[in-house]
Amino acid sequence: MTAQTDQADAKAARITISVDAMGGDNGPAAVIAGCSTSAQKNDNIRFILHGPAEELKALVARKRVLEGRCDIRHAPDVVSMNDKPGQVVRNSKGTSMWSAIEAVRDGEASVAISCGNTGALMALSMIRLRKLPGVNRPAIAVLYPSSNPQGFNVMLDVGADIRADADDLLRFALMGMSYARNGLDLPRPRVGLLNVGTEEHKGRTELKEAYELIRDHHEEAGFEFVGFVEGGDIAGDVCDVIVTDGFTGNVAIKTGEGTASLIGDRLREAFRYSPLSMLASLLAYTSLNRLKKKIDPRRVNGGVFLGLNGTVVKSHGSADATGVSAAIRLAAQLADIQFTDKLAARVAGLPGEETP
Amino acid sequence: MTAQTDQADAKAARITISVDAMGGDNGPAAVIAGCSTSAQKNDNIRFILHGPAEELKALVARKRVLEGRCDIRHAPDVVSMNDKPGQVVRNSKGTSMWSAIEAVRDGEASVAISCGNTGALMALSMIRLRKLPGVNRPAIAVLYPSSNPQGFNVMLDVGADIRADADDLLRFALMGMSYARNGLDLPRPRVGLLNVGTEEHKGRTELKEAYELIRDHHEEAGFEFVGFVEGGDIAGDVCDVIVTDGFTGNVAIKTGEGTASLIGDRLREAFRYSPLSMLASLLAYTSLNRLKKKIDPRRVNGGVFLGLNGTVVKSHGSADATGVSAAIRLAAQLADIQFTDKLAARVAGLPGEETP
Repeated sequence: MTAQTDQADAKAARITISVDAMGGDNGPAAVIAGCSTSAQKNDNIRFILHGPAEELKALVARKRVLEGRCDIRHAPDVVSMNDKPGQVVRNSKGTSMWSAIEAVRDGEASVAISCGNTGALMALSMIRLRKLPGVNRPAIAVLYPSSNPQGFNVMLDVGADIRADADDLLRFALMGMSYARNGLDLPRPRVGLLNVGTEEHKGRTELKEAYELIRDHHEEAGFEFVGFVEGGDIAGDVCDVIVTDGFTGNVAIKTGEGTASLIGDRLREAFRYSPLSMLASLLAYTSLNRLKKKIDPRRVNGGVFLGLNGTVVKSHGSADATGVSAAIRLAAQLADIQFTDKLAARVAGLPGEETP
Repeated sequence: MTAQTDQADAKAARITISVDAMGGDNGPAAVIAGCSTSAQKNDNIRFILHGPAEELKALVARKRVLEGRCDIRHAPDVVSMNDKPGQVVRNSKGTSMWSAIEAVRDGEASVAISCGNTGALMALSMIRLRKLPGVNRPAIAVLYPSSNPQGFNVMLDVGADIRADADDLLRFALMGMSYARNGLDLPRPRVGLLNVGTEEHKGRTELKEAYELIRDHHEEAGFEFVGFVEGGDIAGDVCDVIVTDGFTGNVAIKTGEGTASLIGDRLREAFRYSPLSMLASLLAYTSLNRLKKKIDPRRVNGGVFLGLNGTVVKSHGSADATGVSAAIRLAAQLADIQFTDKLAARVAGLPGEETP
């Protein structure tokens, strides 16, 4: 038995993750279950949990693996999915979300995680953690399933802001490159700029400007620039990082998720169609499960807020224990390599003025 | 035998479709094969084929079903995929694309079809057919697979123009509604406006303006307005028509296609994984084929140009005979119901000024 050793390792855990236990659709039980799954797999992590203390204590007490690895911070209030970002910024001091970000601000934890309201989380993160020097607009980056060897591409921005000018897009390229290098272990990521065609003359003015800016900076920044890419390349293999504004990126990933979900439904229908197809689905059970794992959004759960003094991981509101655990794994990896410092060095090294 | 009767019907064919036989990736053979497939299924259609006469004559001679149902118009030149729209407009008089549009302009055919360069086709269509009164920006509409009972949603614009202001979006709503009513047989289509969230306060300024315009006009126009929708709703069932600008729409459909293609590849890999899964794939063959038919983009091949004096169907450049035949079926359906006239009446009935 290794229980004794595990317990000893656990106490020496190097990585502290600040977890907003509230605000997800499945309540704190799903979040604590996710922490428990992650704690079992990784001896190096411990948690600061934010939410109503009594409720969290009871949930933690049921998971033996969490014993001695959780600090609980009482936060009686919750940011709801319907709260507007502006309201939240003014009235959020007692909320679990505010408290979770505060732990990163104070240096107690390297990364914060929340399943709550994305707009509110970004607004609070910007106010409390502040933007990195040289960053005008932070971005949310996600990992999108792709036919590249690493299995995923980085895409940003997917919804931090509906706008992005040419300077912002250049910074997104640098931040996305840094994320791909540190999160996907790609030494020289290939970056593409999302447009409606690959010809240089196509697209909006800010895209043509961004094209020139990125082309002029990519050599010194150590990444490859493949130029304009199209929607079909988001899941493809011509680049590893897709740069776009938050409006387009948000519509694109939701379209992709919706399409995948439609195909999944149709696949299940197809296998229910006849006795023969039902038998086939039994035989193919393992293969289909393997497929499900590869394209299951729960297993790549977590948008990362880039461009702030501290890393914040946004998990899906509907995340279950598997989803939360995936987000924690991502957070732990980024914390482990001191990602925020690396990213800050990358963006600060950029010549040229900040846009107003 | 019904051959005699077929022949008689063929000569009385009511619907004439003007077909650009050149410009597709698979050459005129694939286009003529598509015409042949369609001619077999529908006695009511005949064709005017545009391209190098000798080459087309030889190809048509090999298909018995096309006998007596094709006029061939000699057009020695081809618009290539790399030609820029501006160049094409100036130097396209001898091309098959120009000739195909001209047959619609002259009233010889009700609909034109081309597999060629989209930008050039739109530019030529606008110059030669002209915009309908009341339309500032034409749009390209596609049918996107969805979980709605009709199996598809209408989405527009997917790339006629990268811009669209609030007035354009209102007209897209009206044109999309008319297409859904006539192309999908929906008496009262539900229209949604694509945004990054469903809350009224979200999104760009022109979207908020368009929201109000569409809300104010939907009653008299006879459609339901469901308000803002998200990327996930493009393949969903909350609405039948998705309205957006051509930049966002183009990225969205290409993202969806790329994602579907990635899942297809992964599915094939999963079934090749072990002897058991290979056996399963044999048993599931019929079911999987049924699925493939449902989500095969070739079977819904054809973007329709809306807002012009005449209907133009753009088929995928990579369309094979099945794809071309699907585009012809769509074209024949729209021609049969005099879609252009219905659409014109719809958009012209709109109160308010035209934007400059």
